[in-house]
Amino acid sequence: MRRTRRIAGRVFPVLGTLLVLGLPITLAAQAQEPAPAIDNAKVAMDTMWTLLTAFLVFFMNLGFAMVESGLCRAKNTVNILAKNYIVFAVSSVAFLLAGFGLMFGDGNGFIGTSGIWFAGGADGSPLTGDAYKGVYSSLSWTGTPLWAKFFFQLVFAGTAATIVSGAVAERIKFGAFFLFSFLMVGFIYPVAGHWIWGGGWLAQMGMLDFAGSTVVHSIGGWAALAGVILLGPRIGKFRHGKVMPIPGHSLTSAALGVFVLWFGWFGFNPGSTMAADWASIAHIAVTTNTAAATASISALLTMWWVSGKPDLSMTLNGGLAGLVAITAPCAFVSVGSAFLIGIIAGVLVVGSVFFFDRIKIDDPVGALSVHMVNGIWGTLAVGLFANPAVCPAAAVVKLGLFMGGGFAQLVPQLIGVLAVGAFVFVIALVGWTIIKLAVGLRVSAEEEMSGLDLGEHGNVAYPDFHSVETAEA
Amino acid sequence: MRRTRRIAGRVFPVLGTLLVLGLPITLAAQAQEPAPAIDNAKVAMDTMWTLLTAFLVFFMNLGFAMVESGLCRAKNTVNILAKNYIVFAVSSVAFLLAGFGLMFGDGNGFIGTSGIWFAGGADGSPLTGDAYKGVYSSLSWTGTPLWAKFFFQLVFAGTAATIVSGAVAERIKFGAFFLFSFLMVGFIYPVAGHWIWGGGWLAQMGMLDFAGSTVVHSIGGWAALAGVILLGPRIGKFRHGKVMPIPGHSLTSAALGVFVLWFGWFGFNPGSTMAADWASIAHIAVTTNTAAATASISALLTMWWVSGKPDLSMTLNGGLAGLVAITAPCAFVSVGSAFLIGIIAGVLVVGSVFFFDRIKIDDPVGALSVHMVNGIWGTLAVGLFANPAVCPAAAVVKLGLFMGGGFAQLVPQLIGVLAVGAFVFVIALVGWTIIKLAVGLRVSAEEEMSGLDLGEHGNVAYPDFHSVETAEA
Amino acid sequence: MRRTRRIAGRVFPVLGTLLVLGLPITLAAQAQEPAPAIDNAKVAMDTMWTLLTAFLVFFMNLGFAMVESGLCRAKNTVNILAKNYIVFAVSSVAFLLAGFGLMFGDGNGFIGTSGIWFAGGADGSPLTGDAYKGVYSSLSWTGTPLWAKFFFQLVFAGTAATIVSGAVAERIKFGAFFLFSFLMVGFIYPVAGHWIWGGGWLAQMGMLDFAGSTVVHSIGGWAALAGVILLGPRIGKFRHGKVMPIPGHSLTSAALGVFVLWFGWFGFNPGSTMAADWASIAHIAVTTNTAAATASISALLTMWWVSGKPDLSMTLNGGLAGLVAITAPCAFVSVGSAFLIGIIAGVLVVGSVFFFDRIKIDDPVGALSVHMVNGIWGTLAVGLFANPAVCPAAAVVKLGLFMGGGFAQLVPQLIGVLAVGAFVFVIALVGWTIIKLAVGLRVSAEEEMSGLDLGEHGNVAYPDFHSVETAEA
Repeated sequence: MRRTRRIAGRVFPVLGTLLVLGLPITLAAQAQEPAPAIDNAKVAMDTMWTLLTAFLVFFMNLGFAMVESGLCRAKNTVNILAKNYIVFAVSSVAFLLAGFGLMFGDGNGFIGTSGIWFAGGADGSPLTGDAYKGVYSSLSWTGTPLWAKFFFQLVFAGTAATIVSGAVAERIKFGAFFLFSFLMVGFIYPVAGHWIWGGGWLAQMGMLDFAGSTVVHSIGGWAALAGVILLGPRIGKFRHGKVMPIPGHSLTSAALGVFVLWFGWFGFNPGSTMAADWASIAHIAVTTNTAAATASISALLTMWWVSGKPDLSMTLNGGLAGLVAITAPCAFVSVGSAFLIGIIAGVLVVGSVFFFDRIKIDDPVGALSVHMVNGIWGTLAVGLFANPAVCPAAAVVKLGLFMGGGFAQLVPQLIGVLAVGAFVFVIALVGWTIIKLAVGLRVSAEEEMSGLDLGEHGNVAYPDFHSVETAEA
Repeated sequence: MRRTRRIAGRVFPVLGTLLVLGLPITLAAQAQEPAPAIDNAKVAMDTMWTLLTAFLVFFMNLGFAMVESGLCRAKNTVNILAKNYIVFAVSSVAFLLAGFGLMFGDGNGFIGTSGIWFAGGADGSPLTGDAYKGVYSSLSWTGTPLWAKFFFQLVFAGTAATIVSGAVAERIKFGAFFLFSFLMVGFIYPVAGHWIWGGGWLAQMGMLDFAGSTVVHSIGGWAALAGVILLGPRIGKFRHGKVMPIPGHSLTSAALGVFVLWFGWFGFNPGSTMAADWASIAHIAVTTNTAAATASISALLTMWWVSGKPDLSMTLNGGLAGLVAITAPCAFVSVGSAFLIGIIAGVLVVGSVFFFDRIKIDDPVGALSVHMVNGIWGTLAVGLFANPAVCPAAAVVKLGLFMGGGFAQLVPQLIGVLAVGAFVFVIALVGWTIIKLAVGLRVSAEEEMSGLDLGEHGNVAYPDFHSVETAEA
Repeated sequence: MRRTRRIAGRVFPVLGTLLVLGLPITLAAQAQEPAPAIDNAKVAMDTMWTLLTAFLVFFMNLGFAMVESGLCRAKNTVNILAKNYIVFAVSSVAFLLAGFGLMFGDGNGFIGTSGIWFAGGADGSPLTGDAYKGVYSSLSWTGTPLWAKFFFQLVFAGTAATIVSGAVAERIKFGAFFLFSFLMVGFIYPVAGHWIWGGGWLAQMGMLDFAGSTVVHSIGGWAALAGVILLGPRIGKFRHGKVMPIPGHSLTSAALGVFVLWFGWFGFNPGSTMAADWASIAHIAVTTNTAAATASISALLTMWWVSGKPDLSMTLNGGLAGLVAITAPCAFVSVGSAFLIGIIAGVLVVGSVFFFDRIKIDDPVGALSVHMVNGIWGTLAVGLFANPAVCPAAAVVKLGLFMGGGFAQLVPQLIGVLAVGAFVFVIALVGWTIIKLAVGLRVSAEEEMSGLDLGEHGNVAYPDFHSVETAEA
């Protein structure tokens, strides 16, 4: 009781201070200037579509939290949930205070330089094209209000950040991840994203990434890879030259998470039209679903053939791989191409998981294989399978190599993959290193053995159940 | 087998009886009278928005069920799930048979008196304003069909009722909660709600609560407080003047629940326009998300500073606190103000949890701190931060105190908080007392120790796992 | 490491082969021929509604996975999750390669014969009625693009297939279920579905099933019944003439699943308008919700009265029973009738569970009682309660028996129930038998005792927890 009084004594004075300090922020209200000649019905439909699909993308945070915690051990569950929860809160703040403007604000080919603080630049939304007057001209193709654009882009930024969390799981300090999330959404993601979606140099070169195989998934994957290399593998993962399996504590959580992610992807891909463009959104829903389905089956069959059993977690990762791979090309390829892109993604994820194990890169949940490798595959697949005739949203793409179009689309795709990969990996490496020097990256070996939940959070996820110590020593 | 035959012998005769008895009910079909001069495209868009967001609000029932069961012990899981499941079924019936008409039917400043049974009053929806002829004139501002209005309001009523369940958890009889739910949605919520959303005396005085910080959350909280006081604390919570922590059995469930609730809140707040009002819904989505994010971070940092560790359950409750606090002002304040409202909510929920512990009010899941305290905070925040210029839906509000508008909006907000709190608390106290006399409120000490799942339901939630007896004695 | 190298050596050559073999498929791109006189705003709204509700129906896959795994034992969790996950992937492939055309392609009264491979027939969508030129004339009543129609119908096909999985759980071989799923969605479901929704002989006779009480739920149930009979009961279920309860391992999963299913049903039923028909969709949302609510309460009260305790799993199945029962009549009956249909469904499911136990049909999750029995009840309820005046979508129905309309609608309903039941049961029996001869249906007794997770998948769902052997011997 004395303790609670002391705590209350600490907490309440903060409130008054906040009220005074915070006032200047609240005056930064956006004036919504009504513009002439708006087609209200069209703007309303496009805004509904953009918001509702953004809600679905937000919901993918649950999917990632469940997949990642389910594929890790019970003793690290609180830590993983805490990371996956707070990363979206951090993303919301970092994107509002800096990221949105750096990514979509007018600037140069490398970075946006206008309208950064609280998305507060001049803006003529929902007017489009030439009628749009404002600093976010890279988003002037969609006729929705600025806050709809902001919110849709925010949930994408959050996804890129959350991808990191799975790969670095079970040994990273909570504080280190917390800090990196600000860097990721406040700087790394917006800058690289500006190159492709913000009208930057890759966009000008003709690189196309419809819903973010590179922008979201590969960026997340490359940033994670830098962290994984600096962290090193978990204790017990590689012993005497052998790869030791460390099974996740709940395949129920993992499966739940993948269903949620698949569901959320119907926001991610069809929503990226940011308009109720009926022919495109129906097409994209089917390409997305088809690739997820064929990738699930091809991963299942590949593992069945390789290991003799139909493995559930690889099948689940197969589905995610298909979804990541179809993300760039979903609007640009036929359903038949999506069918094939998925099959390849499912095989690729299996091979990639074994490959990373072989080179002793320890990625507890397979995030690199799913997001980085298949993000690359999906981005290149645009250059292979693109067909401008499949739906209205495909009009911008050049015919792919396999469709008889030569290398015109494939080359910019490849340059984009390499440039983004190099930039993100290097900056992330610098960022992780600074954080390492400042607060340290990795928990102690004792804490890792006894679980990060106790060490980092003073708590366990399932106090009412007897747990089995999973072998490590 | 003899037993099943006996049971079958009991069950089947009921069916015939029901068919005969039920027929009069089915004749109460609503005639849908087509009205002149309806803008079909607009009504279709507004109805889609209203229904889709209502579906999201419905889904919050899952969120509450998971948060509440996750934050309680394994031995009471079946009981909490059963309560959280049946409360929405009860709400659906009680709101259909009485609540909707009492809340939104024409009547006087204190209660609706028309169109009560099966929402069966005369109705001119989807016509609006003066063109509307019918008994639900308090909802004539939205141009959707009556059943869309009913359904949207029903899912809100269900939320108010489900809030109660967490605070009274781990010691209340299932039957007592079941009965109270009828009272809550059939009378308490509709009457107090009528004052604010049904055109009653608080609405006439100028009190504004956009999506229900008071109407839904505080009402739920006050009704819960009455129950908690009558029930008393759980055995073992307060011993020798000390507060004993009783950890929840699954932080996976709790985190899952909060993600679902945050997701559902995108229905709760932006949906409360009940129209595809594009500028408002995009604005509201961002204020809602921003407050949830800053509240999560401020609760995290507050607990980190106070206790030395970043606590997950307090962070989760921080997010919920931000969502509750932004519910009333979401359409009336800038994104910058939402940023600040959230920060304060996150600090407030931490202080409030310690405060209730200190005064020996045992609320297992923090429902009072989240819903009652932050419901009050959010309602008052309208009076502090409101700015009629932020979006079209804000046009009705007066400039808030901190925006230079004086006390004009703050005073009705304060009166609303006090009046609703007093009314709901007293009526709920009477209601709980009657139920106590009729069937009893609290399970026996033996049943509480061994778990309500066995005692109330003859079942356990996780029969395949060894459970640890959590310390109590 | 040698092992991973060997595996990598196996996996990567597949990729090259796939690229070459797969090319012909990708050339099967659909040309989207723009048609004259399209009302773009209406098509956009109808497409948004159709896709968004289809996403909700997709999400029901999570619901089924959680309900079914939660109601079974921990040792079979991986197996059930794997079945429920892969069945939708299989459905996506089977419906794309064959099912859609067989069900909705022009043909005769018994089967569609056009536009089968990759939904590649001539198509004039989104034009409707006479303006539509193409081979999918049975879907020409809805003005959405072909891929929206395909996707909406696909998620329904997936539901029918996933219903089977619960009834055959805890003893079926993964491979046998995998194969049956292709047969189910590639042939059985489309053919029987063609009779009712594809313009076949039952449709011509006047049978009506708005959202699939028969088409989806009973078909799933009959196919499951055939499998259950061939499989026989689980070891330990019936001993010395007694029915032994085998409790599920997680009522948290089960409850979560039912909330998700109820949520998804707001896509299933209101989405079946495949148009933003505002008056109908609002009406359908309320009939659907009301039946779910009253069925939950009636199942709860029935079990409370029969067994002395309010049983959670029966209450959950009550809700599902109400949802299944209202699926056929949701657009055709008043809210009052839905109220009664739900009450009866809740009683019926309790009686049916006891009945199947008594006749020694072992259905671990109650799928037959929920989907088959209540699918029949809902289909007949159309003939009893239909009222063409309740909403625009009801205009096609004849007045039901209890509404004073005689047997005009009830007779085709009854014929439909019998014909579909007989056809599906027989074909499924043949299909299961062929699979039995080819690969076997049932795992060995040893594998069943130790759990299918180890035997079929080489994995367990919860390796970090001590499990209790549930009594079987």
